[in-house]
Amino acid sequence: MKKYKVAILGATGAVGREMMNILEERQFPIEELHLLASPRSVGKKLPFAGKEIAVELACDEAFAGMDIVLGAAENDIAKKFAPAIVAAGAVFVDNSSAFRMDPNVPLIVPEVNPEDFKNHKGIISNPNCSTIITVTAVNALNKLSPIRSMTVSTYQAVSGAGAGGPIELEQQVEAIRVGQPVEAKVFSHQIAYNLIPQIGGDVFEGYTSEEMKMQNEGRKIMHLPDLKVSCTCVRVPVVRSHSISATLHFDRPVSVKEASEVIASAPGCRLVDDLAAGRYPMPIETSNQDIVFVGRIRPDLTDDNGINLWCCGDQVRKGAATNAVQIAELLTKE
Amino acid sequence: MKKYKVAILGATGAVGREMMNILEERQFPIEELHLLASPRSVGKKLPFAGKEIAVELACDEAFAGMDIVLGAAENDIAKKFAPAIVAAGAVFVDNSSAFRMDPNVPLIVPEVNPEDFKNHKGIISNPNCSTIITVTAVNALNKLSPIRSMTVSTYQAVSGAGAGGPIELEQQVEAIRVGQPVEAKVFSHQIAYNLIPQIGGDVFEGYTSEEMKMQNEGRKIMHLPDLKVSCTCVRVPVVRSHSISATLHFDRPVSVKEASEVIASAPGCRLVDDLAAGRYPMPIETSNQDIVFVGRIRPDLTDDNGINLWCCGDQVRKGAATNAVQIAELLTKE
Repeated sequence: MKKYKVAILGATGAVGREMMNILEERQFPIEELHLLASPRSVGKKLPFAGKEIAVELACDEAFAGMDIVLGAAENDIAKKFAPAIVAAGAVFVDNSSAFRMDPNVPLIVPEVNPEDFKNHKGIISNPNCSTIITVTAVNALNKLSPIRSMTVSTYQAVSGAGAGGPIELEQQVEAIRVGQPVEAKVFSHQIAYNLIPQIGGDVFEGYTSEEMKMQNEGRKIMHLPDLKVSCTCVRVPVVRSHSISATLHFDRPVSVKEASEVIASAPGCRLVDDLAAGRYPMPIETSNQDIVFVGRIRPDLTDDNGINLWCCGDQVRKGAATNAVQIAELLTKE
Repeated sequence: MKKYKVAILGATGAVGREMMNILEERQFPIEELHLLASPRSVGKKLPFAGKEIAVELACDEAFAGMDIVLGAAENDIAKKFAPAIVAAGAVFVDNSSAFRMDPNVPLIVPEVNPEDFKNHKGIISNPNCSTIITVTAVNALNKLSPIRSMTVSTYQAVSGAGAGGPIELEQQVEAIRVGQPVEAKVFSHQIAYNLIPQIGGDVFEGYTSEEMKMQNEGRKIMHLPDLKVSCTCVRVPVVRSHSISATLHFDRPVSVKEASEVIASAPGCRLVDDLAAGRYPMPIETSNQDIVFVGRIRPDLTDDNGINLWCCGDQVRKGAATNAVQIAELLTKE
């Protein structure tokens, strides 16, 4: 079996470290693993598969000989190194949003549009975390009848903001417990016992960048160029797993029974839907794994062609690291 | 000025105690205040207006001579005592859901439908907390153009479950901090660092009782018998103030500018809407007061006749106790 030379760009962040876990868990065929980061992390050792690997400097030369580079860095870093990665002949699976809407770059959720992989020209983008979770949940419905529009409200965990998010939540909870002032650095406001209805900057008609990703990336992943999405993204004091309340409108009426059946057998999904028994997806039960949990499926009372649902998924894993490794696995199947 | 003999039925609960605060704050013209509760609370003393008032037994005879009874008890208690309250000639302003949909009982948000007060036959119902906050926010828009439908996702604070809700959240956060098992009694699942997408029982097509109140009570309060509402109610680990993400569909296109203008001047509302400056309603800034804060107003990207908004309000005050006292104030203006 062929083995691959893999580098993680931005290995020391929350997503980079999770990529290491996922590569190990899924027994990705690795010949060499290189951990690349900024100068301040160089030399730091991180555990992988029973050994320790020293962090190396992220620089153009570091990509020589690599087969796959998993990008877990911000947009500016991704843009800076993409030319060197492609020139080195590696495939860049990038978790930043830098290239997601580039028509030459496939944007892939392997359960949804693996066929787009073949069109890559050296760069493949990993979609936004909430978008991955939502499209994994709803794509099976889209195959029943094309989705015309979605109205979405998100409940996004603090770990979506990186490793500093859970630390800030814990520090704020502790400050409140002991009666000290609350400091907000990672988030723009207190998140402990609060909600922040803004993720990302103001980009279009009062929508944030995070909110517009659900429409723009959803269109590209599901091959629905006319899909309309109204999204409201809210940060909640939950450590891990994003949750999404979605209303979907189809071309025709879709019954709860048929929607439940296709979701129950959809790849990457698990149906947990028994309201009378108090069973539905919740963040604490959906963290630290790779399945998107779907429940609360019911008819939209405002439109005969609509369905409501609620889904949860671990956004550091399926919403980022696992999805990227799954894309890399497509390469191994070529 | 006429003064009133007032009783609070269920005075020792979270809403009952808040009613005492609100009566005092708003200088309600009180001749006598009686605090009524179950046998186990009888004799307990609660502070009011610089004095202490002893809790009396809730029984049919306790309502003799009362002008107003504020109900802060559960449905069964409200139903049990309503006949005696009406027979005693008092007006029963009831916070339970027992009589809300009774065609002989007005369901009132004083900023929205004060005119319904005149139709009462001894009982007036106080609406559901999330419904009060939502209709206070959107009624001014309904006057611009009738609201045809609403798609709503709620983010409901633990204090909506009574005085035990915040205690349970605090105990669970502490148990997690010290590594002890988490116990859930008030809520059906852990609420600390979690979300519970169920409030109320399964009543209609997979919707909970809490979710159906938004449609059924919204219709009655806003005099919109054909209003359609798809609602998803979610408990969040926030102490106080419910938040609502709503998409409204009107008879005609309503611009963000005109929507913002009417909300800014609507009774009981405050517009806080400057995304670029990070200004929008949040639970921690909207607790312990009586205004419904509205922001994130933007066009619905799925429908030309739609508007999205986000609102927050203190559900123990405006969502319950304050609204009930405001209804009692309508009586003093007769």
